[in-house]
Amino acid sequence: MNTFQTYLQNQREKHLGELLDLLSIPSISSLSDHKKDTQRAAEWFADALRNLGMDNVELYPTKGHPVVYGEWLKAAGKPTILIYGHYDVQPVDPLHLWDTPPFEPALRDDAIYARGASDDKGQTFMHLKALEALLQTTGTLPFNFKFCIEGEEEVGSPNLPAFIGENKELLAADVVVISDTAMLEEDKPTICYGLRGMCGFQLDVKGPRRDLHSGLYGGAVQNPIHAVVELLQSFHNKDGFITVDGFYDKVVPLTDAEKAAFNALHVTEESVKQEVGVTELYGEKGYSFLERTWVRPTLEVNGIYGGFQGEGIKTVLPAEAHAKITCRLVPDQDPDEILELLQKHVNDHTPPGVEVTVTLFDKGAPFVTPFDHPAIQTASRAFEKVYEVPTSFTRGGGSLPIVSTLDEVLKAPIVLMGFGLPTDNVHAPNENFKLKNFDKGLLTLCHYWVELEETL
Amino acid sequence: MNTFQTYLQNQREKHLGELLDLLSIPSISSLSDHKKDTQRAAEWFADALRNLGMDNVELYPTKGHPVVYGEWLKAAGKPTILIYGHYDVQPVDPLHLWDTPPFEPALRDDAIYARGASDDKGQTFMHLKALEALLQTTGTLPFNFKFCIEGEEEVGSPNLPAFIGENKELLAADVVVISDTAMLEEDKPTICYGLRGMCGFQLDVKGPRRDLHSGLYGGAVQNPIHAVVELLQSFHNKDGFITVDGFYDKVVPLTDAEKAAFNALHVTEESVKQEVGVTELYGEKGYSFLERTWVRPTLEVNGIYGGFQGEGIKTVLPAEAHAKITCRLVPDQDPDEILELLQKHVNDHTPPGVEVTVTLFDKGAPFVTPFDHPAIQTASRAFEKVYEVPTSFTRGGGSLPIVSTLDEVLKAPIVLMGFGLPTDNVHAPNENFKLKNFDKGLLTLCHYWVELEETL
Repeated sequence: MNTFQTYLQNQREKHLGELLDLLSIPSISSLSDHKKDTQRAAEWFADALRNLGMDNVELYPTKGHPVVYGEWLKAAGKPTILIYGHYDVQPVDPLHLWDTPPFEPALRDDAIYARGASDDKGQTFMHLKALEALLQTTGTLPFNFKFCIEGEEEVGSPNLPAFIGENKELLAADVVVISDTAMLEEDKPTICYGLRGMCGFQLDVKGPRRDLHSGLYGGAVQNPIHAVVELLQSFHNKDGFITVDGFYDKVVPLTDAEKAAFNALHVTEESVKQEVGVTELYGEKGYSFLERTWVRPTLEVNGIYGGFQGEGIKTVLPAEAHAKITCRLVPDQDPDEILELLQKHVNDHTPPGVEVTVTLFDKGAPFVTPFDHPAIQTASRAFEKVYEVPTSFTRGGGSLPIVSTLDEVLKAPIVLMGFGLPTDNVHAPNENFKLKNFDKGLLTLCHYWVELEETL
Repeated sequence: MNTFQTYLQNQREKHLGELLDLLSIPSISSLSDHKKDTQRAAEWFADALRNLGMDNVELYPTKGHPVVYGEWLKAAGKPTILIYGHYDVQPVDPLHLWDTPPFEPALRDDAIYARGASDDKGQTFMHLKALEALLQTTGTLPFNFKFCIEGEEEVGSPNLPAFIGENKELLAADVVVISDTAMLEEDKPTICYGLRGMCGFQLDVKGPRRDLHSGLYGGAVQNPIHAVVELLQSFHNKDGFITVDGFYDKVVPLTDAEKAAFNALHVTEESVKQEVGVTELYGEKGYSFLERTWVRPTLEVNGIYGGFQGEGIKTVLPAEAHAKITCRLVPDQDPDEILELLQKHVNDHTPPGVEVTVTLFDKGAPFVTPFDHPAIQTASRAFEKVYEVPTSFTRGGGSLPIVSTLDEVLKAPIVLMGFGLPTDNVHAPNENFKLKNFDKGLLTLCHYWVELEETL
């Protein structure tokens, strides 16, 4: 009998070849130079959905990059599953730190090295191949399926909420499944039941109308770099807490049960230090690493620039300085309210002699889903069948702003089944995806659909 | 009778043509891409010295850019004058703020627009033309003259001290004259009797061994940008004073006579605010603008960079962050001692979880020369003859590290006669040099040499 297991084994070379082709497209959504490449990745997925046998495959235009949609609705009377993924990727700088070019996918050390291998082209691709395995071996699928693959996740999905709002019927589903998260560690399958929200903004500090000679004006005219430093320093106190008035007001405290669940994962500070290569960790006093990264809000500077950056010295007092910042938010913080608090903090802490502008780039509400829902428990069993160890339930430190929109608009439970690893270097040089998780992940997805038919 | 006045008038077009040619050479000493251009500017000056009638004109190689030397020693029994200048220029970024390209010199609004027009190609060029005018009209010169024109002033003259030390005899002189400073304002001829020293260094902050996803590690791993911000913020207190232990210990307080002289210059805060386009000034509490920029030390961040700087947002916790800093020093601060104090401050204030390296780029001792020296008083009279107003005596906020070396090695009085203006945009886009000061400056120099013959 031809099972999905043997099918996946026989087709493995072909599937990997297709994935490498997909990963060679530099679909960096944040850079306008890559607009055509990003479009090309959308078309690649549309073609793949058609080849899979999906109907009504279409690129829905947005104000930014298009949304790829496709459906298979031949399971009459059965529930409908919506699979969300994204075909866009992060920028690749600093390029010199990549061992092989980010868009020349390389198979080595039992992994695929390329930007997007893990986040999220690789994982989205797996959903197509799992359904292909079931279709090719059974001739049908146990549910109706819809795909919604967007191209702006890495820039905060600015146009997807409008698309979802305008296409409620098209996207209506009983369960939403997303694979864009990571396992806790190798051979530790993980289901994420909550994600932090986000409020991403930029500070632009303007001082004198032109660059000044720092020898002639320094110490007498406010330096925009000094001003941005003073502002940034004002955001945290010495115990690592954020000093913005009202910032923590709506933070839901962690329950004892959750604390216990986190402690049971045995993530030690020592292992984190070794993984990232630092001698000491940092953060809100009194909280553990997992609490700090999963259920506590943060304010993190992602970029800073001003003045001279070239070789040597230039004695300049620059006219401008800039910082890019993201806050991660937890239930029940509201991104719009937080932005107002941040704006007020900036107004109250702007040093004399400069003007500061706050520009919002990105926002998304935090999200939590109850971990006892059948769609989630079945996913846990599918993982356990393949990986042969208990599934961990976690929260995620990152944000998928779109998850809260899907939750709000579609009113369907959302299952986050991630096959990535913390060592995948997502958003960093040398992003990679382990072949083991490619293979086991495909099996897990097939088992999930087969078993979910019995429980849903 | 053919006077230097009529000669300069008749040759004006030719002289300006030569200067525009010189200014078209992009001799940016800090950028290795411009090494050949910098060499070309040195050769330009060597040719010009030969055409002027100087002997033993030579490019002396250094570890960096060469020193141009030339001499005219035919005034038997007369004192010797050493003229110092530099043929290198500052970088030009941000390029988009220039109205005309920095190395396509443009004559407009009665000024020459080009990088180096004022600092210092234009002013060095004037010394050649003043001597040419005297030679062509009188057939001789009143003193022996030597030229020392270097190519590394804008990177802190790293190799000139060694050159001067090894060539004491070659450079021996009775008076050193330098034109690389500015007048207080238009029609206010100025002799600068003191300059601040400098200690220029870079902070390199290293955190995790690779860039991390700020959603996954932010708030739990020390962010090198946060660390550099904390360090930079620790350098000043709320009253604008520098908090580095011992930093002010050797600062010589301003005398009442000097305070009075500064007040007599009537530089108002209002005029500075309007000039640079800010609503409030800043600096050490209790000191005036001139005190802050002339006789008080500073610690100024000239550049800061780390993390993502492109369009939009990248949720990264970067592995590194950097800052470029210059301290301006006043008598009797010692650059080496100050660097030690800074290094100790950095060690004491480095946050946990990162490593910080301090790299010295540039240093020079502060310098003051008594303003009652005959070589200085005669310069004052030469200015007054041409500009028909009293000469102001000032201190300079910038640094010419080489001045203190010349002072120390040659033991000769140093006269700083500058023809620039504060509005010349030195070190900034749209650098320019007023034609009025080109013309009057040439006359002033000619008068100076003629009158100095009577007083020296």
